[in-house]
Amino acid sequence: MTSATMLPPAASKSAYFAPRPDATMLAIKKLEAAPGLTWSPQTPVPQIGPRDALVAVTHAGICGTDRHIYEWDAWSQSRIPIGITTGHEFVGRVVAVGSAVTRTAVGQRVSAEGHVGCGICEPCRTGNGHICEKVDILGIDRDGCFAQYVSVPEENIWPVDDAIPDHIAAIFDPLGNAMHTVMSAGVSGRSVVITGVGTIGLMAVTIARAAGAGTIIVTDPFERRLEIAKELGADHTFNARDESWPEAARRLTHNQGPQVWLEMSGHPNGIRDGFKALRNGGTVALLGLPSKEVTLNLAEDIIFKGATVLGINGRRMFETWYQVESFLLSGRLNLAPIVTHQIEMSDFDRGLKLMQAGDAIKVVMRVPH
Amino acid sequence: MTSATMLPPAASKSAYFAPRPDATMLAIKKLEAAPGLTWSPQTPVPQIGPRDALVAVTHAGICGTDRHIYEWDAWSQSRIPIGITTGHEFVGRVVAVGSAVTRTAVGQRVSAEGHVGCGICEPCRTGNGHICEKVDILGIDRDGCFAQYVSVPEENIWPVDDAIPDHIAAIFDPLGNAMHTVMSAGVSGRSVVITGVGTIGLMAVTIARAAGAGTIIVTDPFERRLEIAKELGADHTFNARDESWPEAARRLTHNQGPQVWLEMSGHPNGIRDGFKALRNGGTVALLGLPSKEVTLNLAEDIIFKGATVLGINGRRMFETWYQVESFLLSGRLNLAPIVTHQIEMSDFDRGLKLMQAGDAIKVVMRVPH
Amino acid sequence: MTSATMLPPAASKSAYFAPRPDATMLAIKKLEAAPGLTWSPQTPVPQIGPRDALVAVTHAGICGTDRHIYEWDAWSQSRIPIGITTGHEFVGRVVAVGSAVTRTAVGQRVSAEGHVGCGICEPCRTGNGHICEKVDILGIDRDGCFAQYVSVPEENIWPVDDAIPDHIAAIFDPLGNAMHTVMSAGVSGRSVVITGVGTIGLMAVTIARAAGAGTIIVTDPFERRLEIAKELGADHTFNARDESWPEAARRLTHNQGPQVWLEMSGHPNGIRDGFKALRNGGTVALLGLPSKEVTLNLAEDIIFKGATVLGINGRRMFETWYQVESFLLSGRLNLAPIVTHQIEMSDFDRGLKLMQAGDAIKVVMRVPH
Amino acid sequence: MTSATMLPPAASKSAYFAPRPDATMLAIKKLEAAPGLTWSPQTPVPQIGPRDALVAVTHAGICGTDRHIYEWDAWSQSRIPIGITTGHEFVGRVVAVGSAVTRTAVGQRVSAEGHVGCGICEPCRTGNGHICEKVDILGIDRDGCFAQYVSVPEENIWPVDDAIPDHIAAIFDPLGNAMHTVMSAGVSGRSVVITGVGTIGLMAVTIARAAGAGTIIVTDPFERRLEIAKELGADHTFNARDESWPEAARRLTHNQGPQVWLEMSGHPNGIRDGFKALRNGGTVALLGLPSKEVTLNLAEDIIFKGATVLGINGRRMFETWYQVESFLLSGRLNLAPIVTHQIEMSDFDRGLKLMQAGDAIKVVMRVPH
Repeated sequence: MTSATMLPPAASKSAYFAPRPDATMLAIKKLEAAPGLTWSPQTPVPQIGPRDALVAVTHAGICGTDRHIYEWDAWSQSRIPIGITTGHEFVGRVVAVGSAVTRTAVGQRVSAEGHVGCGICEPCRTGNGHICEKVDILGIDRDGCFAQYVSVPEENIWPVDDAIPDHIAAIFDPLGNAMHTVMSAGVSGRSVVITGVGTIGLMAVTIARAAGAGTIIVTDPFERRLEIAKELGADHTFNARDESWPEAARRLTHNQGPQVWLEMSGHPNGIRDGFKALRNGGTVALLGLPSKEVTLNLAEDIIFKGATVLGINGRRMFETWYQVESFLLSGRLNLAPIVTHQIEMSDFDRGLKLMQAGDAIKVVMRVPH
Repeated sequence: MTSATMLPPAASKSAYFAPRPDATMLAIKKLEAAPGLTWSPQTPVPQIGPRDALVAVTHAGICGTDRHIYEWDAWSQSRIPIGITTGHEFVGRVVAVGSAVTRTAVGQRVSAEGHVGCGICEPCRTGNGHICEKVDILGIDRDGCFAQYVSVPEENIWPVDDAIPDHIAAIFDPLGNAMHTVMSAGVSGRSVVITGVGTIGLMAVTIARAAGAGTIIVTDPFERRLEIAKELGADHTFNARDESWPEAARRLTHNQGPQVWLEMSGHPNGIRDGFKALRNGGTVALLGLPSKEVTLNLAEDIIFKGATVLGINGRRMFETWYQVESFLLSGRLNLAPIVTHQIEMSDFDRGLKLMQAGDAIKVVMRVPH
Repeated sequence: MTSATMLPPAASKSAYFAPRPDATMLAIKKLEAAPGLTWSPQTPVPQIGPRDALVAVTHAGICGTDRHIYEWDAWSQSRIPIGITTGHEFVGRVVAVGSAVTRTAVGQRVSAEGHVGCGICEPCRTGNGHICEKVDILGIDRDGCFAQYVSVPEENIWPVDDAIPDHIAAIFDPLGNAMHTVMSAGVSGRSVVITGVGTIGLMAVTIARAAGAGTIIVTDPFERRLEIAKELGADHTFNARDESWPEAARRLTHNQGPQVWLEMSGHPNGIRDGFKALRNGGTVALLGLPSKEVTLNLAEDIIFKGATVLGINGRRMFETWYQVESFLLSGRLNLAPIVTHQIEMSDFDRGLKLMQAGDAIKVVMRVPH
Repeated sequence: MTSATMLPPAASKSAYFAPRPDATMLAIKKLEAAPGLTWSPQTPVPQIGPRDALVAVTHAGICGTDRHIYEWDAWSQSRIPIGITTGHEFVGRVVAVGSAVTRTAVGQRVSAEGHVGCGICEPCRTGNGHICEKVDILGIDRDGCFAQYVSVPEENIWPVDDAIPDHIAAIFDPLGNAMHTVMSAGVSGRSVVITGVGTIGLMAVTIARAAGAGTIIVTDPFERRLEIAKELGADHTFNARDESWPEAARRLTHNQGPQVWLEMSGHPNGIRDGFKALRNGGTVALLGLPSKEVTLNLAEDIIFKGATVLGINGRRMFETWYQVESFLLSGRLNLAPIVTHQIEMSDFDRGLKLMQAGDAIKVVMRVPH
């Protein structure tokens, strides 16, 4: 029995209609250069261009990035334009398409890749739009999905399989981050350590297990997360505050250290200790973003080890999306312990506070229509 | 016309004989915990075990590592046992083999891989002996080749093709470092920047050119080296002190930055600027050893870029050796500007001083018999 | 001095205008289910949809596929719709764009990828549109470029660098076939045999040389082609009728056989002998299309050898195009001996007969305006 | 609970002693150029050279190859020297080592790689000894392990982890074939079809499942084997005689066909149908040996598909061995339904007849001491 099949069916296709051109909608916006987000019930419905689709959002996930914007941290202050509608994880129904749209139809249940590439640079034209230098990200650089409607270029639309329930379809985006990390590193038959199991780290645990990892070791400072990691398939867990874990991890992996390391903490100690643990010739995938510069012993950590270090950003368009779909449909992922809360959109402030308190892993909002 | 064919033929096979068991030999040894190396004419000829070959060294290259030992820097003080015979780059003739040797014959002209792995660990048993955790290195951990005779395990012996002249055969080892770096990164059809063109960096320039690199850009603080780099096939050179070079490099590579970066300086500025230059999605091969820890902006330098960073150590046994041989025999490498000096072994002190003064790139010593 | 810089500059941007909606144009069409092609001076100019660009063709290359259609062979009879405008290799100027076009501008000098994928299947959405199961090919499944104007989806447009002359820009498509073959196999530092040097085989010779191949061996039944192959960088050539060439090739490649084999003949003897020559552990890239089934000794040819066999079709969108551009701009390709004839479009019948006679390698037509 | 932990402990170290130099032993030999094998109780114990280990065999697996030799088929007649001791799958205890052996100790519990490479060719020196052109195989080209003692070069010895029971340790060799096939193709997160589930095919099913395969489809003409395949983790099975299975397989894999195909039947129909099923851009690993030449439509099967075809032979030394060990120790393989019979060595004829009758999958013999 998979988590997917245990859930109510997706909302039916007939429930959503295209809004009138001058209609307004509910949205959650960043209206002030200060902590907080604003409930904005009179927001104009987005316009669509000839190549865009208008999607009636039914469910949206709250990301750690949304929390940064809510808390108005240094990164947010440097990047987020005041007035933007936030949010980039969602599922919904297409209610209108531009005049030149040919690959998406009204009524389709869809999610979307939030990285909108320029479309003409080398990364964009070679399947690497996630590293386009001019990328605009939904809910960060352009209006996002914490709203009743969102406009998305047809190229970014991802049709969602009917067998995937809404609250999972809403989080294809972070599942894609985790999938891209796991599949880039290559875990099949290899021992793996994951440093840091916030939302994406926990997703990586269940994905790595389903993707054929050997021994999985997990570190995190929070015991509750370590327990969930075990539930998801981790073989061994260590509190990240215990600096002896690299030595223990080594003993658990043929006395040589894990072959693969997924860095998902962004914490300088996690990074320092992960390099200590990593096997000579091993592979590191770095996803966690350090908040400041990190000091490394390149000679010992990377060069003498013959290590391979991969920077992981976003997800591949659309290879990663196909992978997420396949794993979801296989029933081999366990996401139940990860989507801890489903709330109403109007309750967004509580959702963010649950995340701040560490009481929630992933919160999915239901958007009313 | 290749550099190989312009040179005198290798010494003939009949010129060398096995020494008597109690014989002594000329050697260059580290006899004091202080700067300098000692000419040691009464050194006992090494013993060989059943699986070893005794090689009469005819030519030996002086490496930067030998210079570190000569200068008795911090690294040398922490690693080098007093009394050791130095040197690890050489060519010679096998004059005796152990009782269980079957793959090497007396009379054979050979060089040897200086990394002597434990032979039983996972790296050693999977073709990755260069990252064995218990590796002993010739001239560093065990007696080396700055001597009339050196003992080497049969497994490490590399038979040298007759068409390769002695002064080139003597430097298979550093050519292997450069080759391993270039081939790990993969330069064929890709734009390349090389930061730091000491001996191995210059070798990397001629190898990258022969291996099919696109635009090659080189940086170094020394103008003379930049001139040699141009002679070896670099398209553009920049003085590493000019901090604007990453922007210029970007303009020369479709406004996106080089696709491949070979880091051969070990200098924090070279590392900082190389990351600035590197194209999103690009590959870095790190060979240069920083003398201390380096501070990196992991988010900007590696993660958002989607970069791949490879730690490069030693060379693959023996894939890299086959590659070096193939490139040498093809006549497509230009090593003439790199082997700047050939001297007598007794003149070793002058050789080291030429290197210190920056007057020599690679110095090869002739060993008398 | 590169071939590119020796040629007259590309036609200026101002020379071409959008035709009136009801205009007619010159075209070469397949009007009868019989050998031959028809000069069609009253062909309506193609319509463009909202996402298409209309290109005024200035130069078009004649492909072996066009010759098959001209000769009306079995394949053509099964695939080609009567009434189609033929041709898929070209360069020209954009003279009109659809209402939703944003990435291409009127006046731009362009070529185009002729494989028009469905855009919604997994291959199309993962950068592998060349293996889309529903692909429509210009000049085969939809009207092509042997005409004054051709309509192409914006997504397929390739802007051509000003430094690339017209007669070379016109043949990006077959250069892409050759490039995709060479880069998929990976020739850098490896010995290569190429069986069959028609147009694409000869392109593969100069590309393999520039991409860093070691020893290049070429076989073909025509001595003239072998001579051109030598001019382009082949080290050794053999007449394909001499069945002893695999043994000779083996002797020339360290007595083990070539590491890479590019099969470009489609001939059963070429395929049989290539497998004989290939080194254990070697890589084959199959591009040549056999006209019927081929009998293989899978055990000896592939399984015991531990061989890797790659099927090569079209070219990657647009990774291969970037590679072709980079190599062309580097000046390291020698295409002068390959583009043997430049003729007027009205002379197309002579062009095809030159190809039939083996007097031409690549024929490029100038299209009048 | 894993199969490994459910079994009695391995025989204790003290039970085996080195035989006297002139001792004889029990062995199973090929003494006549006719069907059958001969029980040979007066066979001299093998001599060991300075680099060899003498192993007291405790358990030996019967391979399909042994059955070919027993049946004296065409292949056996062309390859097997009369007088040889057969068998190449085993576990035992080292009872004596040659004078130059340093990496193996008397008393060690070991299996061994049966491919004895020349040690000096390029494949042997680059971790690819399985494709050495001069390889000698235990029980085929040199005396094997169906005997109380077998002599093996130290380099080929594989120390067996104590947690692995004898009847599993005895079949590292075929597990290695299956592992090499699965890991070369790369199944993690990909849909897989396996054509032919004899012993190695069934091993591939449980390995592919543990290695993270997505949907696994299996075909075979024998229903009993299909049932075992399901027990081992196959999602769907088809009788190979039903020629419509490729279409059904396509429907089960996103209407595109499996991404990976492991060919383990060697049957022309299996090969023909597998190519029909394979997805465009998919990967094939060919392990099954066709008994004669096979006719392929290279254009449709490989070239237009953009397929990758891998020839799989033996297993990698010793990367594959480490992988087998890791999977066994993880407890994620289910081998219980595969090792169907454990018999006494003297019962070998019955073991071979069980295999002929299709009543046994893998038969392991206990060797008396």
